[in-house]
Amino acid sequence: MATTGNVIKCKAAVAWEAGKPLSMEEVEVAPPQAMEVRVKILFTALCHTDVYFWEAKGQTPVFPRILGHEAGGIVESVGEGVTELVPGDHVLPVFTGECKECAHCKSEESNLCDLLRINVDRGVMIGDGKSRFTINGKSIFHFVGTSTFSEYTVIHVGCVTKINPEAPLDIVCLLSCGISTGLGAMLNVAKPKRGSTVAIFGLGAVGLAAMEGARMAGASRIIGVDLNPAKYEQAKKFGCTDFVNPKDHTKPVQEVLVEMTNGGVHRAVECTGNVDAMISAFESVHDGWGVAVLVGVAHKEAVFKTHPMNLLNERTLKGTFFGNYKPRTDLPDVVEMYMRKELELEKFITHSVPFSQINTAFDLMLKGVGLRCVMRMEE
Amino acid sequence: MATTGNVIKCKAAVAWEAGKPLSMEEVEVAPPQAMEVRVKILFTALCHTDVYFWEAKGQTPVFPRILGHEAGGIVESVGEGVTELVPGDHVLPVFTGECKECAHCKSEESNLCDLLRINVDRGVMIGDGKSRFTINGKSIFHFVGTSTFSEYTVIHVGCVTKINPEAPLDIVCLLSCGISTGLGAMLNVAKPKRGSTVAIFGLGAVGLAAMEGARMAGASRIIGVDLNPAKYEQAKKFGCTDFVNPKDHTKPVQEVLVEMTNGGVHRAVECTGNVDAMISAFESVHDGWGVAVLVGVAHKEAVFKTHPMNLLNERTLKGTFFGNYKPRTDLPDVVEMYMRKELELEKFITHSVPFSQINTAFDLMLKGVGLRCVMRMEE
Ligand SMILES: NC(=O)c1ccc[n+]([C@@H]2O[C@H](COP(=O)([O-])OP(=O)(O)OC[C@H]3O[C@@H](n4cnc5c(N)ncnc54)[C@H](O)[C@@H]3O)[C@@H](O)[C@H]2O)c1
Ligand SMILES: NC(=O)c1ccc[n+]([C@@H]2O[C@H](COP(=O)([O-])OP(=O)(O)OC[C@H]3O[C@@H](n4cnc5c(N)ncnc54)[C@H](O)[C@@H]3O)[C@@H](O)[C@H]2O)c1
Ligand SMILES: [Zn+2]
Ligand SMILES: [Zn+2]
Ligand SMILES: [Zn+2]
Ligand SMILES: [Zn+2]
Repeated sequence: MATTGNVIKCKAAVAWEAGKPLSMEEVEVAPPQAMEVRVKILFTALCHTDVYFWEAKGQTPVFPRILGHEAGGIVESVGEGVTELVPGDHVLPVFTGECKECAHCKSEESNLCDLLRINVDRGVMIGDGKSRFTINGKSIFHFVGTSTFSEYTVIHVGCVTKINPEAPLDIVCLLSCGISTGLGAMLNVAKPKRGSTVAIFGLGAVGLAAMEGARMAGASRIIGVDLNPAKYEQAKKFGCTDFVNPKDHTKPVQEVLVEMTNGGVHRAVECTGNVDAMISAFESVHDGWGVAVLVGVAHKEAVFKTHPMNLLNERTLKGTFFGNYKPRTDLPDVVEMYMRKELELEKFITHSVPFSQINTAFDLMLKGVGLRCVMRMEE
Repeated sequence: MATTGNVIKCKAAVAWEAGKPLSMEEVEVAPPQAMEVRVKILFTALCHTDVYFWEAKGQTPVFPRILGHEAGGIVESVGEGVTELVPGDHVLPVFTGECKECAHCKSEESNLCDLLRINVDRGVMIGDGKSRFTINGKSIFHFVGTSTFSEYTVIHVGCVTKINPEAPLDIVCLLSCGISTGLGAMLNVAKPKRGSTVAIFGLGAVGLAAMEGARMAGASRIIGVDLNPAKYEQAKKFGCTDFVNPKDHTKPVQEVLVEMTNGGVHRAVECTGNVDAMISAFESVHDGWGVAVLVGVAHKEAVFKTHPMNLLNERTLKGTFFGNYKPRTDLPDVVEMYMRKELELEKFITHSVPFSQINTAFDLMLKGVGLRCVMRMEE
């Protein structure tokens, strides 16, 4: 292709400062270096994590930066040493990678790649410690190795998943982050049996993806727990059979759940990021067989506390990162679940705007409206 | 048999008061009632739990009482409705039961029988709320449904395991409690893979039984952790390859283990009862695949604390009761493991005395000498 080996000039939404509206700029995107891929992004969605790092409250501020990590695109060119991808491949960028060489990648159980594990503070490529983005020669930082709020971006090959080219990228782009996280937490880690009772704490996109997993696994009772009563309506579309708002009860919500379920739920999945919800989720599972799975990212000082007897009584507590999916090995199969219509993704997409209106997507998320807003790059 | 249906007079070691030497008495043992079995005890061992309830520090004092729960014997007679056992069967009494009817017994995952789960405060039979032991008409309390410090005892059928009559009762009697607990914690719950690295916190009988399980599972590195340096010598006989005394280090022991093992152990099993050791055990397992199993019984106010990130990084925390063995269903197989010489039990028996010298067994345990003292009833 004409662009191969050359700098590409294209549009990107640049975050110049914490909390200030993104600004559409013409950026220069350098060619991919060794083990890197340059991807033409076609669709990108907005996730809370983009907003957190844009607000940079409590996070290390890294600006100017190109955010974005849920997306779908097509490989434009590949750098030296890249053998698994060729231009034209349909791909999903992923914020956490899979080098296929380290102890974690070689373990069947872990997806916490030693080399490409998420690093939110790094704003440069791992290969040479430099950025591939410039504006008039001034370097612009990357974000979690993906920076998908750009028409073209450069990504380490270990953070790029090749998928079925027939899958609609405007929909499967959601699988880059939150939806896979919630889904995998349920299907890969909690693993409820058919007919079981499941509680989900936190009904944002991640929690609803866990709920979608519970529906797919055939759970017969799906209890949604959220402090926001408005979450129930949406959750019903995901199979929520009961809704509990902790604020409606004087006793701890775990006691409410234990009473409702004659001893506790089979599985609880926490998707709030709040440590009290984590404790409640754990203490709401049945003794003997209950499994609780933590997904939410708590603040740095948070402490998980429980009486050891809750564990001795044969409860299991686990946590998961990206739903235990290995991005390159496992995500193509999740795309196939969608293609076979087992996994319903459309219901997560509540909004869609042209890329130029990215600040509208931020506004919607800041107001807590909807689940996912997909941005169309080619409009 | 001549004794069937009649009161049997025999010798028992009675604890009249907390902390006072047991006294050998002639007791009357009533015939078994519905769903009960009268067992002639041949061998009984002493376990810490007997000592705790004899000391009754912090425990509800229940006196006069016949303690004892690790034992082997032969069924003398059975009560109404008992169909699975007949006089002459070789059996192990177990302090926790298996009714085979409740939700827990019907679940493959749990051994926490709703009906016969351990109850340390109850001193009477579950059927009619009465004791089967009297001395000159005065009722003597039972202990955890077993009371094996008596030549004859009455036990609910759900707390009696029928075993291979060829198994030597003076040895397999150890499987009634602590040895099965530690062994099952390793084999049924931690499940280390062949060649893996395992840490065991607390090298008492329970911890060494967990170590025996690690050896049987083919763990290649077995790290023993204990505050008492004297424990290392004994542990070597159980396959301990490394010993760590937390007191020898200024940094937390979990950091020592993480450094020794390049990121953490595959499995950690806690057998101390100390909540700090529980936390250390959990935090010493590797991210991505590490599993920690809690076995020790912590004091009532203890709180398990950890940062949620330790869980999110894909560590698993579990607890177990009686090594997840269902007493009636699973213990016969553990006896067979011994018969096939896969499980070595002899090394746990460091002392043996005639039943009449039971206070010697108490002295040894109070002094922390040895692992198990087996008492011979027929001498
Ligand atoms: N582990 C991972 O790999 C991974 C990946 C993506 C997101 N996450 C985390 O998952 C969590 C959820 O993400 P999201 O995008 O769905 O967030 P969200 O903010 O849209 O949803 C969170 C929901 O939890 C509810 N909530 C908050 N505190 C609660 C409490 N104490 N009890 C009950 N409900 C409570 C809120 O009302 C909200 O509806 C976040 O912590 C996020 O950081 C983790
Ligand atoms: N879950 C069950 O079903 C079950 C059954 C039987 C026993 N137990 C429990 O298992 C535990 C062990 O029983 P045991 O008979 O082997 O006891 P034990 O007292 O013989 O052994 C405990 C060992 O732990 C060591 N220890 C104590 N604190 C420690 C610390 N902070 N770090 C490292 N080592 C420490 C002691 O030095 C000792 O060697 C007890 O808590 C007991 O109540 C549980
Ligand atoms: Zn890797
Ligand atoms: Zn995200
Ligand atoms: Zn039962
Ligand atoms: Zn015991």
